Amino acid sequence: MAKLTEIGWEEFEALSPEAKRPYLENPDGGGLPYHTLFAQQFDRAALERLCALANRIRFINKSKEGALYLKNVLAHKRAMLYFSQPSSRTFLSHLAACQILGITTGSVRDAATSSEFKGESHEDSIRTFSSYFDMIIMRSPERGLAEKMAWELSNSERPIPILNAGSGKDQHPTQALLDIYTLVRSFENKGGIDGRTVTFCGDLMRGRTVRSLSHLLTNFRDVRQIFVAPPELQVPADVVMALAKKGVSFEVMDSLKEATKVSDAVYMTRIQDEWDQAKGESAKIDTSHFKFGAEELALLRPDAIIMHPLPRRDEIATCCDHDPRAMYWRQMRNGMWIRAALIAATFGFERTIMECGY
Amino acid sequence: MAKLTEIGWEEFEALSPEAKRPYLENPDGGGLPYHTLFAQQFDRAALERLCALANRIRFINKSKEGALYLKNVLAHKRAMLYFSQPSSRTFLSHLAACQILGITTGSVRDAATSSEFKGESHEDSIRTFSSYFDMIIMRSPERGLAEKMAWELSNSERPIPILNAGSGKDQHPTQALLDIYTLVRSFENKGGIDGRTVTFCGDLMRGRTVRSLSHLLTNFRDVRQIFVAPPELQVPADVVMALAKKGVSFEVMDSLKEATKVSDAVYMTRIQDEWDQAKGESAKIDTSHFKFGAEELALLRPDAIIMHPLPRRDEIATCCDHDPRAMYWRQMRNGMWIRAALIAATFGFERTIMECGY
Amino acid sequence: MAKLTEIGWEEFEALSPEAKRPYLENPDGGGLPYHTLFAQQFDRAALERLCALANRIRFINKSKEGALYLKNVLAHKRAMLYFSQPSSRTFLSHLAACQILGITTGSVRDAATSSEFKGESHEDSIRTFSSYFDMIIMRSPERGLAEKMAWELSNSERPIPILNAGSGKDQHPTQALLDIYTLVRSFENKGGIDGRTVTFCGDLMRGRTVRSLSHLLTNFRDVRQIFVAPPELQVPADVVMALAKKGVSFEVMDSLKEATKVSDAVYMTRIQDEWDQAKGESAKIDTSHFKFGAEELALLRPDAIIMHPLPRRDEIATCCDHDPRAMYWRQMRNGMWIRAALIAATFGFERTIMECGY
Repeated sequence: MAKLTEIGWEEFEALSPEAKRPYLENPDGGGLPYHTLFAQQFDRAALERLCALANRIRFINKSKEGALYLKNVLAHKRAMLYFSQPSSRTFLSHLAACQILGITTGSVRDAATSSEFKGESHEDSIRTFSSYFDMIIMRSPERGLAEKMAWELSNSERPIPILNAGSGKDQHPTQALLDIYTLVRSFENKGGIDGRTVTFCGDLMRGRTVRSLSHLLTNFRDVRQIFVAPPELQVPADVVMALAKKGVSFEVMDSLKEATKVSDAVYMTRIQDEWDQAKGESAKIDTSHFKFGAEELALLRPDAIIMHPLPRRDEIATCCDHDPRAMYWRQMRNGMWIRAALIAATFGFERTIMECGY
Repeated sequence: MAKLTEIGWEEFEALSPEAKRPYLENPDGGGLPYHTLFAQQFDRAALERLCALANRIRFINKSKEGALYLKNVLAHKRAMLYFSQPSSRTFLSHLAACQILGITTGSVRDAATSSEFKGESHEDSIRTFSSYFDMIIMRSPERGLAEKMAWELSNSERPIPILNAGSGKDQHPTQALLDIYTLVRSFENKGGIDGRTVTFCGDLMRGRTVRSLSHLLTNFRDVRQIFVAPPELQVPADVVMALAKKGVSFEVMDSLKEATKVSDAVYMTRIQDEWDQAKGESAKIDTSHFKFGAEELALLRPDAIIMHPLPRRDEIATCCDHDPRAMYWRQMRNGMWIRAALIAATFGFERTIMECGY
Repeated sequence: MAKLTEIGWEEFEALSPEAKRPYLENPDGGGLPYHTLFAQQFDRAALERLCALANRIRFINKSKEGALYLKNVLAHKRAMLYFSQPSSRTFLSHLAACQILGITTGSVRDAATSSEFKGESHEDSIRTFSSYFDMIIMRSPERGLAEKMAWELSNSERPIPILNAGSGKDQHPTQALLDIYTLVRSFENKGGIDGRTVTFCGDLMRGRTVRSLSHLLTNFRDVRQIFVAPPELQVPADVVMALAKKGVSFEVMDSLKEATKVSDAVYMTRIQDEWDQAKGESAKIDTSHFKFGAEELALLRPDAIIMHPLPRRDEIATCCDHDPRAMYWRQMRNGMWIRAALIAATFGFERTIMECGY
């Protein structure tokens, strides 16, 4: 197994995501991650094992006895949630995942408190957290920071795992995991993800969830991807190139209605105007045709599902909320389960939970 | 039993508090609340059961074994404390109540973090919390929001209870519960609340605690209410009318000293100048005769008590603090016990705790 | 035993630290503190017992079984972390210490939330916390506040212990404890602290850690203290006088290199420019000769150690970080263990833990 202690930072940083992967694996040899940094770490086998573990945890948690069993699994561990870029949704979901497994937590989540650490280097701050906790779950606006910290910690006297809960614009691996888990659950007794058609709609240029999920779907067979967006916000060339390279079938379409008719899953996204370079840039774009409402719902196949990473604005009309195919609420809750699975696996407890008597 | 799933929001909203009550009851049929929204939900039987449960929890918690037993009762549950209007006192009290029962918690309590949710509708935010937690304890400046959320959640695929920890100017039901619990405890072996005289003094116009407690006291027999306040801050007409309608005896008085002489409980309140419509409005009012000091203490009956919802400014002189009749510190701690009782009852654990071996 | 209930506040406040000590002891008679307010409370016997307890906790915590045992020791207690002066490092360390022992916690740690309490007196705020919690861990910019609060609480109907996590410029007793614990651990099998030479370098005038540690070292035999600093930031006269009075050997030196050669421990500190009286005052001081780098490392004895209370700026070059003599990371983690020991002792669980079967 490749070890982060046997490679310098610059050398490691220069590797491709695929080449980095073995360095991030759990030393227990099971093939699941120790540090979770980017979506490309997960192959189909890892995804399926995590989804199975998430299912198991969800099932065990239904009874009080099961819930109390789970709360004991990692009751000897403590995790630090270091959110220098606030995000209550992602924060609460990771917190809940920790709580399910009995992990106690500390947190830094507002700018005022975290500004304290500005006087010192990131490396020193992270080593502070590693002094008191057994895992760091971090979200940062700084691209690549989680990766650097993982390398630093693995090369310290107190190596502990890093879980990237979003770094910069590029990576948010647990969001991709929960999207996959939602698809896996939705098609569980219906033949699985292979051969499905997934439509992405909205701001495909700037949404990192689209990028990650699009990549993870290439782990499955014959999944067709459709991209529906205003021309200014269409899927970036590198995503399309990556699909083309792998021989994955994809299509760029103008009409959400047409795409809906042929889709097994419609993945709606919000216009991410917080990344606008000129003020009001997004407001000038006509996005009116990229919203899912009653008409689209009428065209949606009976078995198909609607997804959204949330929060939403008006991309999905509230009249869809109670339709059984509206999967976005459950998708959110799936995030809690898959994160609990990931954390349990990180600490080497996959088998313990899979084989327990509950 | 009436069900929130069988009534539309507009229709429900238009009902009187009394008519709303059955919709909020615990489906276990025991008559205690599932959603706790307003003080009018509690009749005498419910109040007495909650006080008995609070007494029981308080007693069990005295020994380490008992405390550990309680920490197991709801160890499989997680609660969200969503305080978009900060209030550390109420926050900490609910937190402590959860901790006593073993509930793990997540929280949003500062404006900076909660502003994140501004982009989305309240409904979506609350559904986010309901994805990760088993109960929402919420405080909001927005009148009626807790009620709307309770209806929404009961009509979602993941119904969970709402506990209103203060909404707008009007409702703060658990404050009223702790006031009643304090009176119940204080007169426990002295014949109870029936037939007592309770004086309210201070800003009776804008204090929601006065409004709620005044109402709850009508559940008891022959309780006489006295209102002492500057003319500008006297008790509002609707409160007085409600008492008159129920044939409850009340009196408006000018002199705190005279009222003190005849009272079993003197309930002091702070001038709530944060609600001033013109700046400095309250400062112009002569409040000097509406403060409890050494002279009033000398007039207070030996068995009577002094209450205050806290925080105080100078409404009660600190020279009263160590008098055994100063009940305001214990009143605060009572808030923790009665909230623990309410939460345990909400999850259907009243009987379990009442009948346990501790 | 002296009791805080038997002495007035003014009388108590006027006592010397030594005379105050007996008033702060644990009523169990064991000689360890109930209220922890200042470093002078700890004599050699108390220091050695706390270090032994910290060692024990650290050892027990290594196995999952041990960790779960510890999490049960104080699972019936709840602590309030009241940080009106934010400090995430100290906060997280105390939090972790509580979590190790199973204590559940509540916190106020940001200015926005704590500002709420500004309307009321400190006494009322602290009594609020004492209503809901079993211990208050507090940090405040206000000199002497922790002491006042300890007196107030001990004279209330609900006395609970205060742990001072830093008050004003003067006292930060648990930092001094962790420094001593680090020295104890480092020289554990090498003859202990007696007879060692400790060099303090940097801003010795304004660093309260220097003041406290210098004092605590006088509990040991023949410890020589060396002070290396720019003339403007040299150790204050009162510290030097106190040493002289006790007949403790000390030296003021100009050269960190010379001091390093003869030291068993080099304690580096940051320039505390946040206390500058004129803006940029510190920036005018030539501090270039008071930094520990590669050259100093080369001169450091093989058995000697480098310490730093952290956060650091550039007082220690990062090239020292992986040297086995760089003790500052472990020093930070030691803070967690010694605080856990202190808290366990405060609640009277020293013997339970020392004698448990793990």
